[in-house]
Amino acid sequence: MRMVDIIRKKRDRESLQPEDIRFFVQGYAEGTVTDYHAAALLMAIFLNGMTEEEQLTLTNEMLHSGDVLDWSDIPGVKVDKHSTGGVGDKTSLILAPIAAAAGVVIPMISGRGLGHTGGTLDKLESIPGFDVAIDAERFRQVLSTTGMVLAGQTSQVAPADKKLYALRDVTATVESIPLIASSILSKKLAEGIDALVLDVKVGSGAFMKKQSDASALAKTLVRIGKKAGKQVVALITDMDQPLGTHIGNSLEVIESCEVLKGKVNNDLSELSFELAAQMMVLGKVSDDLESARVKVNDLIQSGAALRKFQEVTAAQGGDALALDDYSRLPSANKTVSVHAEESGVVQRIQAEEVGIAAMVLGAGRAKVDDVIDAGAGIVLHRKVGDTVEKGSTLATVYYNDSKNLDESRSRLKAAYSIGKEPASRGKLIQSIIS
Amino acid sequence: MRMVDIIRKKRDRESLQPEDIRFFVQGYAEGTVTDYHAAALLMAIFLNGMTEEEQLTLTNEMLHSGDVLDWSDIPGVKVDKHSTGGVGDKTSLILAPIAAAAGVVIPMISGRGLGHTGGTLDKLESIPGFDVAIDAERFRQVLSTTGMVLAGQTSQVAPADKKLYALRDVTATVESIPLIASSILSKKLAEGIDALVLDVKVGSGAFMKKQSDASALAKTLVRIGKKAGKQVVALITDMDQPLGTHIGNSLEVIESCEVLKGKVNNDLSELSFELAAQMMVLGKVSDDLESARVKVNDLIQSGAALRKFQEVTAAQGGDALALDDYSRLPSANKTVSVHAEESGVVQRIQAEEVGIAAMVLGAGRAKVDDVIDAGAGIVLHRKVGDTVEKGSTLATVYYNDSKNLDESRSRLKAAYSIGKEPASRGKLIQSIIS
Repeated sequence: MRMVDIIRKKRDRESLQPEDIRFFVQGYAEGTVTDYHAAALLMAIFLNGMTEEEQLTLTNEMLHSGDVLDWSDIPGVKVDKHSTGGVGDKTSLILAPIAAAAGVVIPMISGRGLGHTGGTLDKLESIPGFDVAIDAERFRQVLSTTGMVLAGQTSQVAPADKKLYALRDVTATVESIPLIASSILSKKLAEGIDALVLDVKVGSGAFMKKQSDASALAKTLVRIGKKAGKQVVALITDMDQPLGTHIGNSLEVIESCEVLKGKVNNDLSELSFELAAQMMVLGKVSDDLESARVKVNDLIQSGAALRKFQEVTAAQGGDALALDDYSRLPSANKTVSVHAEESGVVQRIQAEEVGIAAMVLGAGRAKVDDVIDAGAGIVLHRKVGDTVEKGSTLATVYYNDSKNLDESRSRLKAAYSIGKEPASRGKLIQSIIS
Repeated sequence: MRMVDIIRKKRDRESLQPEDIRFFVQGYAEGTVTDYHAAALLMAIFLNGMTEEEQLTLTNEMLHSGDVLDWSDIPGVKVDKHSTGGVGDKTSLILAPIAAAAGVVIPMISGRGLGHTGGTLDKLESIPGFDVAIDAERFRQVLSTTGMVLAGQTSQVAPADKKLYALRDVTATVESIPLIASSILSKKLAEGIDALVLDVKVGSGAFMKKQSDASALAKTLVRIGKKAGKQVVALITDMDQPLGTHIGNSLEVIESCEVLKGKVNNDLSELSFELAAQMMVLGKVSDDLESARVKVNDLIQSGAALRKFQEVTAAQGGDALALDDYSRLPSANKTVSVHAEESGVVQRIQAEEVGIAAMVLGAGRAKVDDVIDAGAGIVLHRKVGDTVEKGSTLATVYYNDSKNLDESRSRLKAAYSIGKEPASRGKLIQSIIS
C-alpha cells in the first residue's frame, strides 16, 4: 500500500477503504507517512469531502491512535459536553456541577485558551490550588468519589489527531466538516464516555459564521457519533456576541458561581441550564427534558450544584472557600471603563474583538507559551438590545499591566455598534439536533 | 506573506496574484517553503485549476528559478521540439539533423529514459564516444559550428520545477494540465529558444490517454508559450502503438539512420518529417509547410540530413562511421522471436507493455540509477492492421542478459491482440494547434 495511491483515490472522488484510512492514520502517527503526503490528502479531503463511512473510520482510527480511557467499573452513565468555542463561554463550570449533582458521571477533559477564545483549564487554575494536571490514578479517584472531574489530558489521547490538527493549521485545511468532526469526536470518545452533548456555536464570534455550516457540522457530529455507538445531541447556539458578561479567567469563575447561586438570569445561565438538562437526559437521571429542567432549578435553589463545584474544587486541591469569597481569587488591581459616545441601542458586540481585547490584557494567549494573567479581563455592562445613554458605561476593563491597555480599550469600543434602531439578540438556542 | 493564506486562496478558487506565485516558487526553490505547504497547494491547483495568467506567472517564475541560456549572439532562429513521451519515439534523432541541415539553429536539451519510455540521451550514448555531458563552452561551440547540439542539461535549469516535479510524483498531482504545461514550458524556455514544436502524444501508450485531455494540454501549451513571447505549434499524435519498429537504444539509432537515409517509410518517418517541416517554418528557413516538406525530402535524398547527424556526432566526440556501419554500435549477442499463435489481423499493440518488455531486458530503467544495456531491445515485425499467419514472427527480442527474458517475451506476446476483424491504425497526426 502506498500513500500516493490513497491520495489519488480521494483526489478522483473515490471512497477510501478502511485499510486506506488505517494506513494513513497509523503511518502518520508513527512517522512513516510524511507531512507532504498528509498535506496533499487533507486538501483532497477538504475539496472532495468524505462519506459517512470514511468519517467514521477516520474518527475510530484517530481515537485508537492513543490511549482510550475506560470507566466501566464506575457506576453510572458517563457524559461530557464539547463546545466549538466562543468568547465568555464558561458553561462547563456551571453545567458539570449541576449534572454531576444530579447523578451524571462527568469525566471532563478540557483544553487551554488560544487567541480570542478562553480555555476551561485556565479558568479553573485561577482558583488557588486547583490542580488540573492530575495523574490517571487521581483522576479516577476524584471521578469515583465526586462523580465528576475537571482536568487536562492525563494520557496520550488521539496523538494522530494532535499531529494532523497542527498540519491542518498551516495548510489551510481547518474548515472541513469531515476533518473537524473526526477531530472532535476522536478526542471526546477517547475519554471513555457513553454520551456527548455538543454546543455548536454560530455567529461572528464563532468558528462557524453561517447557520448552514453550523447545521451541517452539528448533523455530521451527531450522525458519526451515533455510528460510533454513542448517544449524541447537538445544540446550535448563538455566538454573535460574548456569552454572559464576564471575560477573563477569575472573572469567569465569579460569573459561573453567581449562576450556580441562582443570582444571574442571562444568556449564560439559560444555555448552561439547558446543556445540563440535556446531559441529565442522556445520563439517564431524568426521563425527559422537562423534568430535567425542573431538577436543574431545584439543584440551583437548594445550593446542591454550587456545593458540587466546591466539592470537586476541594478534591482537586483548590480553595473551595474562594467560590464564596471572591477576594480569595486573583484579581486586577486597576480598572478603567469604556463609555458610550452616543445614545441609542446596542446593535452588535463583536465577540472576537472582545476576546482579543481581553487577550491583549493578559487574559489569554496569542502564542501557546504566553503566560496568563488570571485576574485580567472585561465585564460587559451592556449587551445587544440594551439602551444606552451617551457617556454611560458599556464595559469595564480589569488590568494589572497597562502595556496593551490602549489597544484593549480601542478594540472593546470598536466591538460595540450603537444605533438608533431597536435591536434584539439572535435566538440563543437556535436548534437541537439529535 | 504566508503560505497558508496563498493555499487558502487557491482552495477557495480565488486567483493567485503574481506575488503569491513568486513567493511560493522562490521560497520552495530556496527551502523556506516546506514540502507540506507545496503539497497542499499542488492538490488545490490540481482540483481547482489555474487561470492562464496564473499559469504564465508560474511558468516564468519556474523558468527564472535557475539559469536561462542566451544564444542571441548566434545568428538564426533557435527552435526545439518537445514530446510528452512514448515508446519507440526517436524523432529527435531524425528531425534535428534535418532541420539543422536546413539552417534552423537547434540547442536541444534532452533527458534520460525512465520506466517504459526511452530517453534521447541514452540513445545518443549508444553511439561510441558520443558525449552528451558537455559543458557550457563546448555546448556553445558545437551549436555555433554545426547549427545543432544534442546534450543533457549544462546548467541549473528551472530547479524549482525539478523539485516540484519530484513532489508531484509522490503526492498524486502529476496529471494536472496547468502543472504539466508550466513544467514543460519552464524547462524548454530556459534553453533560450525562440520557437517550440510540441508533440503531444495521445493513446494507450501515452501520458494522455484521451483525445480531450491531449487537446486541452496542447491548447494550453500553445497559449501559455505564446503569452511568454515564443512561437509555439503543437501536434497531437497517436501513441496507441509504438512509433516505428525499433525499441532499445542502439536499435533506435539504427532505425533513425535508416529513416535519414530514406530507406524507411512508416509512421516514424512520417511524423519525424512533419515535425522537422514545422520546425523549419518556425525557424524561418521555409515560408510554408508545403515548401518545407519538399525541402525535407531534398535533404533526405541528398544525404545532407544524415551528414548533419554525422557532423554533430563527430563534434560531440562520437563515432560518425557507426551511423553507416552499424556493427560499430553496441549490440545484443542473442535474439529470440515471438510468434503469432493464431492467424488474423493485428488489432492492437499496447505500447506501454512493449516499453516495459524492452526495459526489463536492460534497454531502460525501472529506477533512476539502473544501468542501461545499449544493445538490448525489441524489433516489431508486425504493426496494427498487418495480417499475420499462425506461427509467423511478430517481433524479435534482442538480449545479452537472459534474466528477465521470459517476462519480456510474455509481456511482448500479451501486448499484441490478434483478431479476425480488419483493423487500421489511428490517424498518426490527429490535429495541429497553433
